[in-house]
Amino acid sequence: MMSLDALREDVCRANRRLPSEGLVSLTWGNVSARSDDGSLFAIKPSGVPYDDLSPGEVVVLDLEGAIVAGDLRPSTDTATHLELYRAFPRIGAVVHAHSTYGTAFAQARVPIDCLGTTHADHFAGPITVTRPLSPDEVGDGYEVHTGRVIVEHIQQAGLDPLHVPAVLVAGHAPFVWGTSASAAVDNAVALEASAHMALITRLLTGGDPPLLESWILAAHHERKHGESAYYGQEEA
Amino acid sequence: MMSLDALREDVCRANRRLPSEGLVSLTWGNVSARSDDGSLFAIKPSGVPYDDLSPGEVVVLDLEGAIVAGDLRPSTDTATHLELYRAFPRIGAVVHAHSTYGTAFAQARVPIDCLGTTHADHFAGPITVTRPLSPDEVGDGYEVHTGRVIVEHIQQAGLDPLHVPAVLVAGHAPFVWGTSASAAVDNAVALEASAHMALITRLLTGGDPPLLESWILAAHHERKHGESAYYGQEEA
Amino acid sequence: MMSLDALREDVCRANRRLPSEGLVSLTWGNVSARSDDGSLFAIKPSGVPYDDLSPGEVVVLDLEGAIVAGDLRPSTDTATHLELYRAFPRIGAVVHAHSTYGTAFAQARVPIDCLGTTHADHFAGPITVTRPLSPDEVGDGYEVHTGRVIVEHIQQAGLDPLHVPAVLVAGHAPFVWGTSASAAVDNAVALEASAHMALITRLLTGGDPPLLESWILAAHHERKHGESAYYGQEEA
Amino acid sequence: MMSLDALREDVCRANRRLPSEGLVSLTWGNVSARSDDGSLFAIKPSGVPYDDLSPGEVVVLDLEGAIVAGDLRPSTDTATHLELYRAFPRIGAVVHAHSTYGTAFAQARVPIDCLGTTHADHFAGPITVTRPLSPDEVGDGYEVHTGRVIVEHIQQAGLDPLHVPAVLVAGHAPFVWGTSASAAVDNAVALEASAHMALITRLLTGGDPPLLESWILAAHHERKHGESAYYGQEEA
Repeated sequence: MMSLDALREDVCRANRRLPSEGLVSLTWGNVSARSDDGSLFAIKPSGVPYDDLSPGEVVVLDLEGAIVAGDLRPSTDTATHLELYRAFPRIGAVVHAHSTYGTAFAQARVPIDCLGTTHADHFAGPITVTRPLSPDEVGDGYEVHTGRVIVEHIQQAGLDPLHVPAVLVAGHAPFVWGTSASAAVDNAVALEASAHMALITRLLTGGDPPLLESWILAAHHERKHGESAYYGQEEA
Repeated sequence: MMSLDALREDVCRANRRLPSEGLVSLTWGNVSARSDDGSLFAIKPSGVPYDDLSPGEVVVLDLEGAIVAGDLRPSTDTATHLELYRAFPRIGAVVHAHSTYGTAFAQARVPIDCLGTTHADHFAGPITVTRPLSPDEVGDGYEVHTGRVIVEHIQQAGLDPLHVPAVLVAGHAPFVWGTSASAAVDNAVALEASAHMALITRLLTGGDPPLLESWILAAHHERKHGESAYYGQEEA
Repeated sequence: MMSLDALREDVCRANRRLPSEGLVSLTWGNVSARSDDGSLFAIKPSGVPYDDLSPGEVVVLDLEGAIVAGDLRPSTDTATHLELYRAFPRIGAVVHAHSTYGTAFAQARVPIDCLGTTHADHFAGPITVTRPLSPDEVGDGYEVHTGRVIVEHIQQAGLDPLHVPAVLVAGHAPFVWGTSASAAVDNAVALEASAHMALITRLLTGGDPPLLESWILAAHHERKHGESAYYGQEEA
Repeated sequence: MMSLDALREDVCRANRRLPSEGLVSLTWGNVSARSDDGSLFAIKPSGVPYDDLSPGEVVVLDLEGAIVAGDLRPSTDTATHLELYRAFPRIGAVVHAHSTYGTAFAQARVPIDCLGTTHADHFAGPITVTRPLSPDEVGDGYEVHTGRVIVEHIQQAGLDPLHVPAVLVAGHAPFVWGTSASAAVDNAVALEASAHMALITRLLTGGDPPLLESWILAAHHERKHGESAYYGQEEA
């Protein structure tokens, strides 16, 4: 079982990957991850540059949002992460990043359709867009309502959150998740690449790109995530 | 209070961020910042590569444009910066950079509309385009008239210069400002990212992207800049 | 003659070029190369990050797909590489990479036409798109059938595989080859640059770009690859 | 006066800037520069990677194309450079690079119009496109005829080669020049940035971007290149 120190180190490392993978400028993103027993989660402190971030600055909270460890104020987006952990017990980590192409799809309120196997390896279908928050939701707890709009979107569409581990919040940016901090950042990288490729594919086809054949989508996703997955090395 | 040496170091560091943030090639940009009492400002010398720039080469001038410290010729754009400091006492620093996407909007004479929260975090509305300079203005003090056209644009539109801390000069490039050198460079990074995202959003929507809901724009800007701002850590 | 150790070192170096040339994120690509006598080939192990890859981890297989050297599981795409080596004895190395622009053309199912000499230096004609795999092909050995669809495509079109050393698999990504690992990676770099330039050329011409004149295409390709090639230095 | 050793060092440094300024992949470009007395020029050897290039490998030739110093074969494009030096005595250096955006304009056979001051600082008008080479020209000395087509283009249009120090060869790529190796590489950087910005400006304006006002174009160019230029520091 992962100790709290190991969890903070893991979350620190995952946050530092955001700029090195080209997903953020300035401090436009944050990663959190949950403890093995699911009762706590660790998140980036607000406004701290990634390069300066150390594991001891990572903030640990319980699922009521109370700070358990850490001296700094947690990310302003903490309440959004918290809503996702509460609603979906199998989510192990959450990434929020204003990555260029994913954010532009969120601004355009256009879903990222599954046009190829790069997308299918990480997302078993289109990455869809939530409704925008209402004035009341914005006025009364903006971040908590951002989380609730995401949860509502996934539940109303009857989606399995680990089947398509991301959503675009209208006018805002992507939220991405996974079973671990490292898997969630991988998914954020895949979302950004899929969005970039989807834009180009649209430009090449007059805005009407062909969807990936359903049987290829299913097979590609299964070879990485299915019961008989055969990508990568056996876990020790 | 910041000493003159500290001011020059601050301006040197901010200028060196221009290439590392991807905002300039060659020497296509410059940053200046004002002393705490508002009576002096420090600016990059003309044509010196960013990597070679040292604090002692930064030129200090008073608000009449007379050189107070420094052996090199100041940036050719100095007169433009000066006009901004004279007209708007609350501006603490100015950035001029021919960053790719922002400059293309200035060339197209198309405003960068607020299409998402990345934009709203830094600019509480669209970043608009000035009129072009007239032949007389160009012939008789090109740089001073560039500054006056910016000031005229902001005053005629009744804009608060710190509410939307940037403008696009028609056919030229962005001018961006802020309360400090570091905040002004952050705003220049945000302008470039917002312009890039706005272009993609336009391509995804046939040139007719939805504006960010007004209540989300206001709330996002307030959480970073309002009286009860709660982003980042408390200042010591 | 190249020893097995030298072959593994060569393949390791070629795989490490994939991220440094900007062709892949995460582990979205792999390079293999054939032994001088053509009976064996060496390939990247599955899911190992490029930066950590060492020659000893490279897996060596024979043309029946049996592992001859190496303790790790070979790339999931091994069966595709194998089909290419079996069908085309003159292919010395194979690169598969989900590079952004090439993959978008594969998703759009639009060939990369030869619009300029950058393309002609490496590919003596358009880079074309295979048919998609059928449900049966996907269900019964996805990777081996990917290879067979490529082979079928080249043979049915009557193409010389070294004349245009690449193909786009519909909805998937490019497969590229060459006489050596280093030449194959060079071709993958050229494919990605040609795809990027072709997209821009299409945008500049309303989607109807002029093809490169046939006599320029032939001459440019010949000066690098013909019998009287005069590019580069004489081989010792 | 610059010694031959200094010239070779200058040319080596300028060639190594091509990849660091993002103008080339692989070995898709070369820089040459002329001796002070105009009788010799130094150029990159063919096919040598930039990072490995040392001044002693740079090849020196006279204006008949005979090698004066250097053991390696000169760039395959040497004959093109030579034609430019012969026709235009004031050209001090030539850059050829398949940079992405400039090359795409050459492929589209669309001129890079002057849409802003970034362009005007380096080029006092549009960067235009030559006619393609005829089959005879390609068959009988491809590189020398590339140079002659450039010279013909400039002379027939009555252009001053230092007023607009670049041309796009149809279906091929840009050729750029200047008074020194470093100025020519600066111009190649400016061409690529201007092409990138021009593409975006076209996308933002439905393909019909406004030209920069003629009086701004003239003034901007003059402040860097005119008789009373005031950009940069005084030369010692």
